[in-house]
Parts: sequence; structure tokens; C-alpha cells
Amino acid sequence: MQEATSSPKIGAKSMGVADRSTPLLRNYWYVAAFSDEISRQPMRRTILEEDIVFYRTEDGKPVAVQNRCPHRSFPLHTGRVEGDRIVCGYHGMEFNPDGSCALVPALNTAPKAIRLDAYPLEEDGPLLWIWMGDPANPDYSRLIRQEWCTSPEWTHVKGYMYMKANYLGLHENLMDLTHFPFLHGKWNIARPEHAAAPSKIEEGEGFIRQREVHHDVGMPPALVEAVGMKAPFDREAQHMVQIPGMHQGRQITTDASDPPKADEQHIIHIMTPETQTSTHYMWAMARNNAVDDEELSEQIRVVGEGAFMEDKVALEDIEELVARDHRPNFREKIIKTDEGGIRVLRMFARLAAQEQEGMQEAIAAE
Amino acid sequence: MQEATSSPKIGAKSMGVADRSTPLLRNYWYVAAFSDEISRQPMRRTILEEDIVFYRTEDGKPVAVQNRCPHRSFPLHTGRVEGDRIVCGYHGMEFNPDGSCALVPALNTAPKAIRLDAYPLEEDGPLLWIWMGDPANPDYSRLIRQEWCTSPEWTHVKGYMYMKANYLGLHENLMDLTHFPFLHGKWNIARPEHAAAPSKIEEGEGFIRQREVHHDVGMPPALVEAVGMKAPFDREAQHMVQIPGMHQGRQITTDASDPPKADEQHIIHIMTPETQTSTHYMWAMARNNAVDDEELSEQIRVVGEGAFMEDKVALEDIEELVARDHRPNFREKIIKTDEGGIRVLRMFARLAAQEQEGMQEAIAAE
Amino acid sequence: MQEATSSPKIGAKSMGVADRSTPLLRNYWYVAAFSDEISRQPMRRTILEEDIVFYRTEDGKPVAVQNRCPHRSFPLHTGRVEGDRIVCGYHGMEFNPDGSCALVPALNTAPKAIRLDAYPLEEDGPLLWIWMGDPANPDYSRLIRQEWCTSPEWTHVKGYMYMKANYLGLHENLMDLTHFPFLHGKWNIARPEHAAAPSKIEEGEGFIRQREVHHDVGMPPALVEAVGMKAPFDREAQHMVQIPGMHQGRQITTDASDPPKADEQHIIHIMTPETQTSTHYMWAMARNNAVDDEELSEQIRVVGEGAFMEDKVALEDIEELVARDHRPNFREKIIKTDEGGIRVLRMFARLAAQEQEGMQEAIAAE
Repeated sequence: MQEATSSPKIGAKSMGVADRSTPLLRNYWYVAAFSDEISRQPMRRTILEEDIVFYRTEDGKPVAVQNRCPHRSFPLHTGRVEGDRIVCGYHGMEFNPDGSCALVPALNTAPKAIRLDAYPLEEDGPLLWIWMGDPANPDYSRLIRQEWCTSPEWTHVKGYMYMKANYLGLHENLMDLTHFPFLHGKWNIARPEHAAAPSKIEEGEGFIRQREVHHDVGMPPALVEAVGMKAPFDREAQHMVQIPGMHQGRQITTDASDPPKADEQHIIHIMTPETQTSTHYMWAMARNNAVDDEELSEQIRVVGEGAFMEDKVALEDIEELVARDHRPNFREKIIKTDEGGIRVLRMFARLAAQEQEGMQEAIAAE
Repeated sequence: MQEATSSPKIGAKSMGVADRSTPLLRNYWYVAAFSDEISRQPMRRTILEEDIVFYRTEDGKPVAVQNRCPHRSFPLHTGRVEGDRIVCGYHGMEFNPDGSCALVPALNTAPKAIRLDAYPLEEDGPLLWIWMGDPANPDYSRLIRQEWCTSPEWTHVKGYMYMKANYLGLHENLMDLTHFPFLHGKWNIARPEHAAAPSKIEEGEGFIRQREVHHDVGMPPALVEAVGMKAPFDREAQHMVQIPGMHQGRQITTDASDPPKADEQHIIHIMTPETQTSTHYMWAMARNNAVDDEELSEQIRVVGEGAFMEDKVALEDIEELVARDHRPNFREKIIKTDEGGIRVLRMFARLAAQEQEGMQEAIAAE
Repeated sequence: MQEATSSPKIGAKSMGVADRSTPLLRNYWYVAAFSDEISRQPMRRTILEEDIVFYRTEDGKPVAVQNRCPHRSFPLHTGRVEGDRIVCGYHGMEFNPDGSCALVPALNTAPKAIRLDAYPLEEDGPLLWIWMGDPANPDYSRLIRQEWCTSPEWTHVKGYMYMKANYLGLHENLMDLTHFPFLHGKWNIARPEHAAAPSKIEEGEGFIRQREVHHDVGMPPALVEAVGMKAPFDREAQHMVQIPGMHQGRQITTDASDPPKADEQHIIHIMTPETQTSTHYMWAMARNNAVDDEELSEQIRVVGEGAFMEDKVALEDIEELVARDHRPNFREKIIKTDEGGIRVLRMFARLAAQEQEGMQEAIAAE
């Protein structure tokens, strides 16, 4: 039994902390989809409340244009792709990958005034990135390329989940692993005492990084065997947030061998906002040992999908409760293990304020 | 391959063009239902956001009164018809076809202060018209009677579809047949080159009329046989819009016989707004040859229902997209084939502004 | 056939009459649940728009605390009860029955600043009462205890129904039994002529009481037999409303024996608002004769559930119609049989205005 020896400092969320009403951040790259989701068949996905249609050209280049015919708002994804063009199913208007009109059948010409917003894309291995800011000025310095995406020395498993909740809760969730033994108890990946493991947090220009170590954790037996590791295991979790749509996790497990063996994994969480209260949640787990072991891959995939599904359900339960529970004076409390997550929310609140200011200046300058 | 030789003039929808936020027009006759939908069994239908109950008296006269008991807002359609009265299922209040109270059981009398709004009706063959303006002053000059409705020389097929979309999109759809080869491709009733067929548009006081000719079109084989026609066929489509709730189409097909034979059909589209974003869509196709050929009727019915269902689905897809896609600066573009539809939308915008002005004057005069 | 001999006075609902937009009354006891609904398994129920979790301690004492972890808004009912504490399923925070924190695992302590709103409860036989006003000052003088709840001389049957309608309509329904022959016709408990039976209404400080007598009514045959009664039967219905969440009905049936035999029943209607347009509707029917006759109990239960389900469906139909039917000038009419119900609605409107005033004064005084 514990006793309140000294009263820890408890805060409450306030203005400077982003929440579900904070405007979504636009001047960033988001992962729109996994590369293998995009084919010659048009696919619809709404990102930051913009309805977008994706497809590939004959050469396999990915295309993203507004999923709304400029003529009568018909959803283009219900039309068809012909050559490199997408053809509207209503009056047959055809559009090029750059959004320009290729043909208005009724006019037998292609007016410049009729065009789609086109979105800059960047394909990096399994990830298809989309730039949601000014299409004329994609900022490539904000694109996060990673070795595991393309290097043959790495392999990965991955998954997509539609989440009816704001994306910020997922950022908080991932910066605070003290939920492991409670929410993910059945996977045997942490014990209650791990909840009190301290975090080291670093904040620099454009990033927040966090680290914590859990001693004597569980490991998938197949992975232990593949790497030839010896219990007990310690796990260092590393977290990096640089952009609104990605949490880069790294997990380094060391064993009791002499000298110790180490296993490293990347655990990438992708949260691409659909609306203020719904998110495309994609994840990938990459490793650089036993890369050809498909049984191991499947074991990792099952644990990943199972645990991340628990996060998704928890965040959806919260979203539903917040809509239902009317307590005007309620503010969520902050404790010391929230520091990483709160820093992320503060960074996003600052960035959102800057973007809103920028938009107002742009309107004033017109 | 076409090239943009000269840039055609492209416009954008603006203030003067009615859209889904334009107040619904009240001082008009609308088709409330097909006559055979109304029986001694009360039927509920919401029109212009007013919940209405329909039934027939013992003499077969149609009745339309507000579907809301003046006492405790109980829906009368769940009650029962007794003689010519409708009886509320809650406290047993009885009402006459003119909306006056016939009995309050608890008072054992019929107070004048308790009454239902009653709606002027006009039954014209298969169509039951309802006047949605001031019930004391139905304007019969605005009622559109048609020969095919009642003449024994004509027969027709018809259908009802509930459409989760504003009614204006259907007006635009019907004034612009360039969508035929794309949206209705499988019915073989037009080819892509028909999209460029020019329209003749006439605008007069209280009507917009449009005409276009498509050469070498498809025809239902049974109709060809019934009339003894010879390919190729040309089709002249005529369109007339006089009131918010009806598009009167006429289709005259001529053949290659010498002298040419002609087939004439009326294609009547009825769009009765339920709310700003839902519509009772009824249609009828009437012909004056082979009127006893039931197989032919069925063939026409199947094509009509199939093609109009495609329109309905397209308009619902648009309605859903507009609710989902957030692009504050988006305005639908106008090209020359939209002229007829845009004139209709402008006419309705003018009429709605006049009605709103009239209402404000009426309120000011009180 | 009746004739309007003299015109009865008809009113219309106005400002002073509570309706679905009137703020819900907070400074009252409501029945949160039947006692047997609450167990060691956490149960969620939203009352007055506050999400609440209920469970029992090891000693069987009922607990009601806010169903929202103060840390990250996680719904506590998805967690678990351990000893007397409820444990959050997200980060494992533990709370005592009084809402205070028992443990934050990540801090290994129990900060005072982290706590749940706890609700005063009072268990009275089958009823679990909850105080929805200031938790520091529950007003026990407003709690309605009843003999039938706890006395061994009484037995009862009961039921719960979720009703998608505002609770006020149920108050009106119960104060005006003229709906019996129309809405509950199939149960043979009243005839059309009963609709005109006059009511006696008494209004005192904090209550409204009403009485009416119906001659020659129906009775469940098993009850007649159990009490040894002789037709014809007269029924006196008594109604008492003292608080927003309860209508206390009493039904005294007398027979044709010499001297007359009497059967008395309590019919308790509980309407606990969930939101402005949804209600937890609970009911109980208690009697003090043939208390061991389980067949009779079942017969009474079936009639009760059947008839009250008709009320529930009627009120839901009204709620749905009101949302659908747009008639800005419509006001519900009031006739003389509404007097009891209207007095109840006026009382609640006054009480709501007082509460709102009190809240504004409290805010001003801060």
C-alpha cells in the first residue's frame, strides 16, 4: 500500500495545449496511404477534411487530386481512370495528373479555368506522403525519410485502422507508456511497476524526443529464438515527434548474454487526420534481423495489430464519452508522466496558432 | 485528340443562382403523391419540411391535413380514419377533411380553436397536386394539367424514389443531357459525341424551354417494332420548367422511313422537396402509341427506373460529398451546356427572394 | 353525435410552461436505477447529461462517481472494481467510493488534486436515489420514501424502458388519463366515455395532486379472484407530483359487494432525464393483497409493461415528429383535462427559472 508522502505537482490542460478543437495543421507532409493501397483503381480518402482521389498512372506514378469535379461536385472516385487521366462519371470531364483539364466532352476542348487541386506526393517505400499545404511550395525539409522503408537489410509488417477519434490522443498515448500494463495487459509486454519508470525528454527546434527503460520485459519467443537472446530482457523505448502525422518509435532490447545481444525495432505510428474527430491510423514495425523469417513477421504483426487495436478502441471510447458527458468545468489533469505528450500538444498548439496567423496575413494582403 | 483551340467562356456559380441553402418555394403546387398511393389508410409524407397526413374520404376524395394533433403533437397517421374524419390515437380527437375539429372526447364538443392546417388538393389522373402556399388562396393558374394524364389515347408507366439530395440538382441534371453517355452508358441511349449537341433555349414569363437533337440514337427494340420504325433514329428532346416541382420532358423520335415515322413520349420528372437535402422523386413516361402493349410498357418502365435510379444515386453521391469535402473557396463551374439549368436556378433564386420579401412585408404589416 | 353547445375555453402553451428546451432540474433526487441493477460489475448510466458509473463496494454499499477519469477522460465503466475502488483501464488510476484518488501507479501516490465527482446516493428498497445538485448539500427533505418500497405487507412488479423523448411528456401523459381508451384500448381498462370524467386538482407548496373516478372499469380477472371482488368496479385514480423525476399514482378500486371491498395499488412512474430528449423510464406497481400470488404478479407485470410501452412509443413518436415538422407558429393547445399536467409543467418552469437564477448569482459571487 502506498501513501501520499509528498504531494506531486498536478496541472490541468489549458489554452496552450492543443485539443480536438485546434485547427488541423496544413503545412506538413502526411502519410496519405500505404503504397500498396494505390492502384489503377481510383481510391477515395478524406484528409484534413478534403476529399481526395488517388490512383496510379500507366507508369505507376501515384496521383492525388481533389475528389470533386469542378463542374457539378461529382465524386471522381466513382468514375474511371483512362490512361493517365481520371474521367468523371457524370459528364465525362477528363483530368490530368497535375489537375489540369484534359477534355470537356460537351465543349470538345480543355479549358484552363476548369481544374482540380492536385497534391504533391512523395513515395518512400511503403509510405505515400502527401503535402497538404500550398501545393506550389511543398517543403521537402519536412519530409521524414527512413532507412527501414527502403533498405534491403530491413523488413516490416504494417496495418491500417480507421479511428473515430481525434489524432492528438494517439500522440499522448504513445508518449506515455505507463498505460502498457493496464491497457495492453494481455500481451505481457509490461508489468504494473513499469508505470513508474522515468522518462528523459529532450526538446529541440522542430522535435520532441523521449526515452525510457523498462527492466525485465516480455519478448515474443520467436524473436528471442531468431536472435538467440537470453532472458531477462531490458527494453529501451525511444520516441520522436517532428510532424503532426507521425510518431517514430524505436525499441532496443538487450539481453543477459555476455556480451549482451541487442535487438532493434522501429515502431512507426502514423496518424493522418480525416476530420477533427476521425483519423487514419497506420502503423509499421520494422526489424533488421531474421528479415526472411515470415513466421516471426506474422507473430509480430499479430501482437502489433492486437495492441494498437486496444489503443484505437480506448481513444474511440474517450471520443464518445467527451461527446456525451456534459461537465462544463472539467479539465483533464496533467501528471509528470504526461510531460512528453503535453510538450507535443504544446508544440502543435503553437504551430496551429502560427498557421492561423499566417492565413489571416495572407487574406489581409490580398 | 482534341486541343484547346480557343478558350471557351467559363463561369462560376454565384449569389444569383439557387442552391441547397435557398429557401424552398412555397406558393406553388407540388405533386404530393401518385393518386394510387392515397387510400383509406392514412399515409404520412413530409413536404417542404411540413409533416402531412393523406387519406381518402368515404366518397374517395383525397384529404391532406397537418400530421400533428394540435393538442399534444401526436402524429395523426398512426391513428385511424373513421368515416371522413381522422382520429388521433392519443386522446381520440377527431378532425374533418377541412381541418376543423369534429370532436374532443374529453370535452364532448368540437372547439373552433382546435384545428389542423388543411392543404388544397387537386387530383389530375395519376397526379395528386398539393398547394403549399396560403391555403386560403391557391393559385390554380400555376397548376400544370396535361393531356396524357387523363386522355384515353395515352398510357403511362411511373415510379417513386426517395432521394437524399436537394431537388435542384435534378433540375440541372435534366436540362443537360450531355451526361447521358457517361452516367447512363449501359442503356445505350446516347453516345459520347452527343455530349456536344447544341441546345436551343427560350425563356419567357414563368417558363424556361430547351430543345436539342441527338442523331442516330438507341431505341427500345419493342417500341421500334410496335411503331414499325426503321433505323437510324434521331431524337429531339424538349424540356419545359414552369414550377419548382416539375420538369416536363418530351421526346420525339423520327426514323428513316419515307415519309418518316415519329414516336412521341412525355417524360415527366417530379421533384417535391421533403427538406433542403431530401426529395420525393417521382417520374412518369407516357406514350400515345401501342397503348395496350403491356410488354412494351414494362420494357419502358425498366429502362426509366434504371436510368433515373442512376440520376438519383449520382445526386445523392454529390450531396454526401458536399457535406464531407471542406473547400471554402470552391464554386462549381458553369459551361455553355449548363445554360438551361442555370437559367432555371436563377429563376428559382429570383422567386425565392420575392417570396422572402413578401413574408417580411407580411410580418411588418401585422 | 355531439354538438358544440358552448365554446369551451382553449389555451395554448406559452413561455411559463416547461418544454424540451427548459434546463433540466438539478437540485433534486432522481431514481438512478433499480437497486438490483447495481452490482460489483461497473454500470454506466448518463443522467442529466452527466456520464456516471455505478457499482457496489465489498459491503454492498452502492457507489456513483463520474464515469470519466480526470486524467485522460477514459470511461471508468470499462475498467474494473477492485475491493472498494474503481480502477481506470487506461493508466490504472484507482479511486475510492468518495471520488478521492487511491493510487496513481505512475506516481506511486494518491494526489488530492486528482478526484472524481461523487454523487450522494440513498437506497430505499428497490429504488436507488441519486442527488444531482451540489454534492455537499443533498436535501433529504426532497427524498420521497414510500411504505410499499420496504414494508413486507407490500409486493411489487417493475420494469425499465429507455425512452428517446423528453421526460415532460410523460408527466403530461400521466396527469391526463383521457388517453386510456384511445392509446391503451386493447387492455380494456377504460372506455371512451371515461375520457370526459372530471378531475379534482389541488396545488400546494411543492406538490400537485389530482384525482378522478372512472365508473365500471375493467380489472385483471386474477386480481378480482384474489381479492374476491364483485363487478361492476369503480376506480379512483390519484396522482401526486412533488419532484421532477417521479409521478406517484394510486389506484383504488371498489366493487359491488356489500359492504364494498377495495383494492389499492401504487403505480409509480419514474422519469429520470438522460438528456433533453431522452429519458430512463422506470415503473413499479405495488399491491398489499395476495402478495404471495406470483401468477397475479406476472399478470399485472404484463399489463403494466404493455400499457407503459404504448406510452413510451407514443412519446417517442411525438419527439420524432417535433424534430421533423417545421411549423414555426405552432403552439400546442390546452383544454380543461390538461390542467393537472399544465400545472406540473408550470411548476417545473418556475423551478428551472429559480435554479438558473441561483446559478447566475453563484457565478457572480465568485
